[in-house]
Amino acid sequence: MEKKENGVDGKKSGRVVDGPTNPMVTPLLNDLYQFTMAYAYWKAGKQSERSVFDLYFRKNPFGGEYTIFAGLEECIKFLANFKLTDEEIDFVRDSLPGCEEAFCDYLRGLDCSDIEVHAISEGSVVFPKVPLLRIEGPVAVVHLLETPFLNLINYASLVATNAARHRFVAGKSKLLLEFGARRAQGPDGAISASKYCYLGGFDATSNVAAGKLFGIPLRGTHSHAFVSSFMSLDEIVDKKLRSSDGKSSCEDFVSLVQTSLTKIQNSSSSSGIFSETNKSELAAFTSYALAFPSAFLALVDTYDVMKSGIPNFCAVALALHELGYKAVGIRLDSGDLAYLSTEARKLFCAIERELKLQDFGKMIITASNDLNEETVDALNKQGHEVDAFGIGTNLVTCYAQAALGCVFKLVEINNQPRIK
Amino acid sequence: MEKKENGVDGKKSGRVVDGPTNPMVTPLLNDLYQFTMAYAYWKAGKQSERSVFDLYFRKNPFGGEYTIFAGLEECIKFLANFKLTDEEIDFVRDSLPGCEEAFCDYLRGLDCSDIEVHAISEGSVVFPKVPLLRIEGPVAVVHLLETPFLNLINYASLVATNAARHRFVAGKSKLLLEFGARRAQGPDGAISASKYCYLGGFDATSNVAAGKLFGIPLRGTHSHAFVSSFMSLDEIVDKKLRSSDGKSSCEDFVSLVQTSLTKIQNSSSSSGIFSETNKSELAAFTSYALAFPSAFLALVDTYDVMKSGIPNFCAVALALHELGYKAVGIRLDSGDLAYLSTEARKLFCAIERELKLQDFGKMIITASNDLNEETVDALNKQGHEVDAFGIGTNLVTCYAQAALGCVFKLVEINNQPRIK
Repeated sequence: MEKKENGVDGKKSGRVVDGPTNPMVTPLLNDLYQFTMAYAYWKAGKQSERSVFDLYFRKNPFGGEYTIFAGLEECIKFLANFKLTDEEIDFVRDSLPGCEEAFCDYLRGLDCSDIEVHAISEGSVVFPKVPLLRIEGPVAVVHLLETPFLNLINYASLVATNAARHRFVAGKSKLLLEFGARRAQGPDGAISASKYCYLGGFDATSNVAAGKLFGIPLRGTHSHAFVSSFMSLDEIVDKKLRSSDGKSSCEDFVSLVQTSLTKIQNSSSSSGIFSETNKSELAAFTSYALAFPSAFLALVDTYDVMKSGIPNFCAVALALHELGYKAVGIRLDSGDLAYLSTEARKLFCAIERELKLQDFGKMIITASNDLNEETVDALNKQGHEVDAFGIGTNLVTCYAQAALGCVFKLVEINNQPRIK
Repeated sequence: MEKKENGVDGKKSGRVVDGPTNPMVTPLLNDLYQFTMAYAYWKAGKQSERSVFDLYFRKNPFGGEYTIFAGLEECIKFLANFKLTDEEIDFVRDSLPGCEEAFCDYLRGLDCSDIEVHAISEGSVVFPKVPLLRIEGPVAVVHLLETPFLNLINYASLVATNAARHRFVAGKSKLLLEFGARRAQGPDGAISASKYCYLGGFDATSNVAAGKLFGIPLRGTHSHAFVSSFMSLDEIVDKKLRSSDGKSSCEDFVSLVQTSLTKIQNSSSSSGIFSETNKSELAAFTSYALAFPSAFLALVDTYDVMKSGIPNFCAVALALHELGYKAVGIRLDSGDLAYLSTEARKLFCAIERELKLQDFGKMIITASNDLNEETVDALNKQGHEVDAFGIGTNLVTCYAQAALGCVFKLVEINNQPRIK
């Protein structure tokens, strides 16, 4: 266990610890009973008695054999900046029946300079019944840390563990992308999910705020709505695209895409796979490629993956290739991911060979349809060609087990052992 | 459906809509692909095309037959204040490969003055496949609302529905208390849980921040740690307690409690139930009563409910009664809640009759041990004397189903129907 310096020591040594990431994490993010108890301790003259509390859990989540400890940094940020504002103290006074004014003075003077925290390093693999944190200090103050600490650690550790389990199943070589913002339990369910999934072994997130706050790599391309918002290639007005090296310019990228589609259509690689593709989808892909020629990754399942999405994608990728760009790949969001990814890979490789397009077969195949540990495991057993998994709901809400039950127990007061 | 005025209309009519409760709810609380698509629309000159999106879910949660719609107010607050800061725009620019500066100018000018939202009233009972919101406006802007709206509505509606289901099972007459802050999925998992459980039919929360933010009644007393932090009655220094009417004063409330305990011990009501009670617990209860004589509610299961907790509680309640106070009641946090609540009620009623203590039998019995819909239902079937349920983990994390799957679908663009 390493010893974390508390607020005052931190200041003494010239270090200033920022406040919690979420400004809503204040001393009032607390169960009322922490304040009623603080008041009762204070009334009894016991508020400064030296107490020791342990924070631990009793059982690993997800029926597993380990837990990843997370949330410590936010606890330290909270602790180092612990201070009740006058407005908060007024609210506490009004919430405690018969609260004496002198207690408000006591609260006004409170900080955590007298608190000592011993903790396991954030990100460690931890086990049941082993204290993750040991908090020592005046009993009334330590009580005021219980609810915020549990709140900051329970979900953080749960979702980091969930991420680590997904990494374990997916294997080291796969890209794991956290796509949970829309289904997370509230705004910072989303933001902390992104943070702790990254800690737990994910590579990137779709959540822009988390990217900005924590420097986590961002990923994302387009949705089905983008595809269906286009009607036809005629909508595309600005058809010009400069080549990758900037030396030349294609005046009509739309025509180049159409020519490429015919090439793909006539290639032996794709013989018999498709006849006519969806033109709204082709227009969407073409537009997207015009916007991001160096980062073209298309969602190919809006209409029919093999008969429309993949051929349209290949046409645009081929057109980009002629201008010196390399398309990034595709995303599959429905259907039989094992089969579709395998078929897509076969076609990419066949086109690479037939049309002599270097690396065309190596394009990234992303899958993202309501995935979880079990479905990734099942895909592995079936065999697939997916390079990247985008995982949302099941990851961030910890659907398989939505809570970790960390507890905060008094173990000592005034050097006397006190275990219930 | 009622029509909500958008930001500009709101300002025109002199109304200013506050920002979202959580300051982390910014336009960057978004999937990256909303920005990549906005860029692609902008590149294609399509960014202002009039689009219509519906937000709805496909299946009621918890295997149930209804859903409570919640989260609308926060969406409106977000919408009315939608504005990207320069710093946010810089971050978006850096996140989009090859982003043109003119797009940043476009983002700089964006607000939601051109967005129209039609919505069902917050708190309504809603059903699958019926649009909860219909959002109309420039396609690039509506895309930027998708992730925040889904984030703000999915969990809000899920937890409000969960609360309503708990209310339905518990019945109208019971007090329902949300105690989930420590196990919620992150800080505003806790705060929004409190808000939406209140909306869904709960009476109060333990979460002080939610009490302050939303005016939700607060509840809470003390924990097991408070009980075990006391050693003996000798610790209590200030033993004085004024009577409820302020006319007299008891110089030694501790002695009064001890006398009361003997009375309870010798009463026929409690004959044979207990011999010696735990003195650390008695000291904790006495201290708590000295702090909150008009709001004494004790957690009675730290040692042994029937042999120690309840008798100790009755002794303190009786002593308070002699000074004109009425104790509020007890909380049970373990064991057979049906049996213990029934036995406690019997004893309270017997003491009321024997010692002529008005309302002693009506004291509130609160139960709070990992409760959920099923356990409350099982208690009802067994028969119990619980007046108030404190529900945490299962309620706020929606343990039985941790996500609601609201989706956001394009239904029209440029007056053309576009359903995938």
